[in-house]
Amino acid sequence: MTDSKTGVWFVGARGSVATTATVGLAALVRGEAPPIGLVTESLGEGAFAAWDRLVVGGHDIRGGSLADSAAELERGRVLPPGYAERFADELADADARIRPGVTLGSGAAIERLGERGWVEPCDTPAEAVRRVAADLAAFREATAVERLVVVLLGSTEPPVDRDTLPPRWEELSATLGDPARCPLRPSSLYAIGAIEAGAAVVNFTPSLGAGCPAIDELARRRGVPHAGADGKTGETLLKATLAPMFAARNLKVDSWVGHNLLGNRDGAILADAQNKQAKVESKERLLAELLGYAPQSLVSIEPIESLGDWKTAWDHIHFRGFLGVPMTLQFTWQGSDSALAAPLVLDLARLADLALRRGESGALGELAAFFKSPVGDRPPHALADQMRVLKEWLAGGRPEA
Amino acid sequence: MTDSKTGVWFVGARGSVATTATVGLAALVRGEAPPIGLVTESLGEGAFAAWDRLVVGGHDIRGGSLADSAAELERGRVLPPGYAERFADELADADARIRPGVTLGSGAAIERLGERGWVEPCDTPAEAVRRVAADLAAFREATAVERLVVVLLGSTEPPVDRDTLPPRWEELSATLGDPARCPLRPSSLYAIGAIEAGAAVVNFTPSLGAGCPAIDELARRRGVPHAGADGKTGETLLKATLAPMFAARNLKVDSWVGHNLLGNRDGAILADAQNKQAKVESKERLLAELLGYAPQSLVSIEPIESLGDWKTAWDHIHFRGFLGVPMTLQFTWQGSDSALAAPLVLDLARLADLALRRGESGALGELAAFFKSPVGDRPPHALADQMRVLKEWLAGGRPEA
Amino acid sequence: MTDSKTGVWFVGARGSVATTATVGLAALVRGEAPPIGLVTESLGEGAFAAWDRLVVGGHDIRGGSLADSAAELERGRVLPPGYAERFADELADADARIRPGVTLGSGAAIERLGERGWVEPCDTPAEAVRRVAADLAAFREATAVERLVVVLLGSTEPPVDRDTLPPRWEELSATLGDPARCPLRPSSLYAIGAIEAGAAVVNFTPSLGAGCPAIDELARRRGVPHAGADGKTGETLLKATLAPMFAARNLKVDSWVGHNLLGNRDGAILADAQNKQAKVESKERLLAELLGYAPQSLVSIEPIESLGDWKTAWDHIHFRGFLGVPMTLQFTWQGSDSALAAPLVLDLARLADLALRRGESGALGELAAFFKSPVGDRPPHALADQMRVLKEWLAGGRPEA
Amino acid sequence: MTDSKTGVWFVGARGSVATTATVGLAALVRGEAPPIGLVTESLGEGAFAAWDRLVVGGHDIRGGSLADSAAELERGRVLPPGYAERFADELADADARIRPGVTLGSGAAIERLGERGWVEPCDTPAEAVRRVAADLAAFREATAVERLVVVLLGSTEPPVDRDTLPPRWEELSATLGDPARCPLRPSSLYAIGAIEAGAAVVNFTPSLGAGCPAIDELARRRGVPHAGADGKTGETLLKATLAPMFAARNLKVDSWVGHNLLGNRDGAILADAQNKQAKVESKERLLAELLGYAPQSLVSIEPIESLGDWKTAWDHIHFRGFLGVPMTLQFTWQGSDSALAAPLVLDLARLADLALRRGESGALGELAAFFKSPVGDRPPHALADQMRVLKEWLAGGRPEA
Repeated sequence: MTDSKTGVWFVGARGSVATTATVGLAALVRGEAPPIGLVTESLGEGAFAAWDRLVVGGHDIRGGSLADSAAELERGRVLPPGYAERFADELADADARIRPGVTLGSGAAIERLGERGWVEPCDTPAEAVRRVAADLAAFREATAVERLVVVLLGSTEPPVDRDTLPPRWEELSATLGDPARCPLRPSSLYAIGAIEAGAAVVNFTPSLGAGCPAIDELARRRGVPHAGADGKTGETLLKATLAPMFAARNLKVDSWVGHNLLGNRDGAILADAQNKQAKVESKERLLAELLGYAPQSLVSIEPIESLGDWKTAWDHIHFRGFLGVPMTLQFTWQGSDSALAAPLVLDLARLADLALRRGESGALGELAAFFKSPVGDRPPHALADQMRVLKEWLAGGRPEA
Repeated sequence: MTDSKTGVWFVGARGSVATTATVGLAALVRGEAPPIGLVTESLGEGAFAAWDRLVVGGHDIRGGSLADSAAELERGRVLPPGYAERFADELADADARIRPGVTLGSGAAIERLGERGWVEPCDTPAEAVRRVAADLAAFREATAVERLVVVLLGSTEPPVDRDTLPPRWEELSATLGDPARCPLRPSSLYAIGAIEAGAAVVNFTPSLGAGCPAIDELARRRGVPHAGADGKTGETLLKATLAPMFAARNLKVDSWVGHNLLGNRDGAILADAQNKQAKVESKERLLAELLGYAPQSLVSIEPIESLGDWKTAWDHIHFRGFLGVPMTLQFTWQGSDSALAAPLVLDLARLADLALRRGESGALGELAAFFKSPVGDRPPHALADQMRVLKEWLAGGRPEA
Repeated sequence: MTDSKTGVWFVGARGSVATTATVGLAALVRGEAPPIGLVTESLGEGAFAAWDRLVVGGHDIRGGSLADSAAELERGRVLPPGYAERFADELADADARIRPGVTLGSGAAIERLGERGWVEPCDTPAEAVRRVAADLAAFREATAVERLVVVLLGSTEPPVDRDTLPPRWEELSATLGDPARCPLRPSSLYAIGAIEAGAAVVNFTPSLGAGCPAIDELARRRGVPHAGADGKTGETLLKATLAPMFAARNLKVDSWVGHNLLGNRDGAILADAQNKQAKVESKERLLAELLGYAPQSLVSIEPIESLGDWKTAWDHIHFRGFLGVPMTLQFTWQGSDSALAAPLVLDLARLADLALRRGESGALGELAAFFKSPVGDRPPHALADQMRVLKEWLAGGRPEA
Repeated sequence: MTDSKTGVWFVGARGSVATTATVGLAALVRGEAPPIGLVTESLGEGAFAAWDRLVVGGHDIRGGSLADSAAELERGRVLPPGYAERFADELADADARIRPGVTLGSGAAIERLGERGWVEPCDTPAEAVRRVAADLAAFREATAVERLVVVLLGSTEPPVDRDTLPPRWEELSATLGDPARCPLRPSSLYAIGAIEAGAAVVNFTPSLGAGCPAIDELARRRGVPHAGADGKTGETLLKATLAPMFAARNLKVDSWVGHNLLGNRDGAILADAQNKQAKVESKERLLAELLGYAPQSLVSIEPIESLGDWKTAWDHIHFRGFLGVPMTLQFTWQGSDSALAAPLVLDLARLADLALRRGESGALGELAAFFKSPVGDRPPHALADQMRVLKEWLAGGRPEA
């Protein structure tokens, strides 16, 4: 526990997840929310920053207000009735600390979301990085927070071809001055700006963020940790849980089909095929890791407007048992995407803050339990193994690199 | 690996599980079955008896033949087409080694299954125990097996009031001469007879078997191990897999409802309310262990004739996430009960055989992964933990008691 | 269309269904509700009383207030956020017209619900009938309504043995003076009181109500119509829809299992085994009618507290196709019980009012589409047939008896 | 009933549906199959040709044999164990009457299926039509059948742009001599050849077949009836059953998502995006017809190899009830595609034969119950209405055109 304050900076601060996290944090500070859904609350709270030590700020490319977002979530049955009003003051405070985001290189679907007159165009990636770092420095000064955690929560970007990325920071940084040569999208520019400002980076999205060797190198040099990618909130959480069962029983999975219906803004962005690509890849890789072979696999994400934030996943698992007899497991998962993600985001803010205090830097593979595509050196993929690694890390920190 | 032979004695030898195991073993010996569903095949085969070192025998209270049972399973889509005929010789051999079983104290539903003219009534529990031990001794002599594993696969018995059982073998054994005083049902008489004959005991049923202090004491004295109870093949396997996920994410499970439809003989026996009691209790205890609190829980097992051996479980899990928002997970599991159980039975025969060779005695809590209600001193309940304990046991054996 | 007013009297006026109907009616009158869920709105509104011509009153054995009930339904996500407050005036008006209900002969589970100090005990069924009729007469006078429809919405009563009921009104009425001889429960006493007061009776519950020859005779004599029983809102609606499909395709249904989870007060009452009996019987009869044979059938209703008003039904239909090959249809239905029932209740009030205006009397089999156990002479059971009959009745009325 | 024989000519005679129909017909003739799944058996058999009056022949582009196809279906659990052998003689007889099919214009995916050395290429559509008609004439002569019904069962073709098809037979027929000008695919060439040979045409596929004004004109001129298109066996059957329920209750369907998994050859063909287009369109049109408005709708068909012939459909229906409260119905349908289709194919052979005997010609809209996209002048879409129309047609025939 520590008395000093930590800044939690949401990229996508007016989005559903960040809004739910901001309302939820206010409720936790006032003692009006049960600790449900918060992993850190069940892992020994002593180690972590108290809720009232966290100060929220962020970037967003959309205008509007946190109050509007909260009201919409209340209508959509994600926030309990009356919450938008009850925590109006805290929302207004946080809203005042939101700065215009960066859209350079984000692709057409995301750029359409950017509010004219609010978002200020940048000419080069380098300029975007500088602006992000400057916003963070100003936030740090204004709020007197000692440490900073930047959490990437923006819309899924079109994928980057990782094979063509320069492996060294020196080479990658040389491209920042020229938008035509720079392969990075905003998630990575935010990450670089954050690292330059001494912040830890948590990438809850499937976009690249800090997840390439060159940016990891920068983070190590600057002595800050980073974690990601792609928060594990629903169907993939179940995959990471169920696939080890089939492996443990030596049952042969022939096919695993997952259909995800989703109606919020995220769903709309994902409808843009290029952006969906990144998400689906992240979901499919897992099975081969957990089973030791690749069953026929199909993952779809489809925008169904009427569902709003309520993601519905249907998975059909066809497997063979003794003497080859075919059997079936199906599940349907119905959960509020934002209500599942928000507490994990608060958990990750606490965990990254802890890593900062401990002076750890580079990829935090120990936080693999939270992610679909965990960074780090061969992190485990089964949820039970990931939880064990997390607890060991909490207990003992990790050896110096 | 060892060259000596091991006898595998099924109690309920003509039932669906034992028949499937017997056919499957024959297929494995001939190299005609893939190792699907066999846990030991994925855990380093070297340690275990080769399939051709296992010799099958057993008790049953039903007449008929293994050939008939196999043909019925083929019609029911549990065995692949043609298997009953293809392995007719092996089935006939095993059938010739089946002896009449014991019904004393088994309750009305099970007694009705007993074939007149085949089952020979016993006057006292002591006589039943002696007959079981004598059958095993004769089997050992006739087949020249070095070790014996008795696997209890009989129908679920009405529950025994565990609180009234004498805790010491001396006291319990004193009741065996008098049916009116003896609280034991056949599963325990088989277990005692097996232990007296130096056999390891595996209880795949929810009945008592060797699972009480007095019989455990006997097993320790005789230097034989025992494991059980209640094979974990379907819905409970999923509970042991999924409940830790809710715990890991600190999601609050409000209710967990499970409805099981089943059409085979087991289903018919379970329709007898008294017998169902034992099964349902075994299924409900688990959640509180895994979650740390007891959600509202409901488990039904209903005999639906048309389903035959194809068990269908529907589970509805109602849970709350961040800020108390209610969410739902449902799953449907459709599997052949016998095809799920049979390979585990063969695994357990190998594992108990290994324990015999290692000279271990008493409750084998390390085999908890296979059971709904594992014996032993505080065995873990989460499947992932159970698998870790199993692997550690395989790697290192266990310290002398 | 008519300008005169009609009184709609809910028995169980503070229950979830009546409260939802009362709020919904207020919203319809103010033009603030879309006509979703209302059958009469899609059948040519011209024939029916306008919403602002309906005046709500009722009986209840519980104290509390409609305002409390509405607030609870809002928390339970049945009413949209803010509705309890928005329609507070209309709720208060209706609440002022609620009179204490009758508990004589309702069984222990329901009697426990009765509020002390509010419910006034009756000594005889005859006294209960007189009090009901007097309450209705007072309501008619106070509100100047021209016609009266009494809708039974109370908790499911323990079943009455229909075979022992006197078939003639003369005989049945002779028992009303003696509680020990009278076989009737409150639903029938309300019905008799209503008929004596010249009201139409709609029985939305599985209880007896007016559904026996003697009370039907009374209704015919008094010239009032009655309809029922047991509103068809969820699983049974699906049965009446799906079973004809299997019949049309000549697919052989081997088993139809339905499990219903429900958490509201109705669920709690149904947990009382005696009361559940009535409900389950009403649900099971249907299949044999629709298929022409009786498949193995199982229906359970289980109270799961966390679900509140949100009924979840899982049905598993096992059927055989060509050459006997087994196939499966499963469905899960998740709906708010009260939000499904309330618009049908308003529809039935309009339809019964129309029948009153037309001078029809006795059992309204033409309203079978709304009920699980329709009254009348061989009403159709398939939903499509029931809708056709309903439309024909609307178009042409029915011939004089 | 009639004593004369009718030829039933399957296009795609060695495919799963035709093979299942051929085996099933043999079983029916021998009295060894229950009449399950056969609509005509429940509609008064007297009117229809007896099973032993039907003689099977057909076209196929694949080589192999009916015996092979039947064995594969037996392994795939579509045919009961032993059936391929039991009906080997009948299969061999039918196989001897199979002629090489036509691939001209079928698209790459289907052409790949064509067996080299078996399929004889045609230079023009006109030549293909002549060959089809000649094969049918030869079959008629060889088997002495009095009437002919051609049932199209081939793989789904890439869609034809219906808007560009010449509306008059005169114009369309003028294109047949030139492959570059002729817009038709094989299903239509088979249909034209059949009509020229005096056969009735039943199109069980989503391909065009006889389903355009010009070919309908030809059928009317030649005095033969035709029916189609796209047999309604699974998910769409449920849509035609369930959507009227939502309409009857005035519940507002916001979205209807259907995912279909299928592993047989049909699934593989459908994976070819162009071919899938035709199938999906056929499935989506229905909802707007039945509901009166178009909810958001999504239909996918995905080839999942391990499922073989066992089609699994998951549908998620999101709808709103009273006061706009959102509710959900989900269903999972697991059926053997071929076992569902085959009896309908036999039914249609009987029904088309009846129409031939009655002298009816042109589109048989009265058979709409069997099809996803029924031909004819505004046929009904709700299953219940379609069944009523079918029964009326059986009872009374139809007025002369």
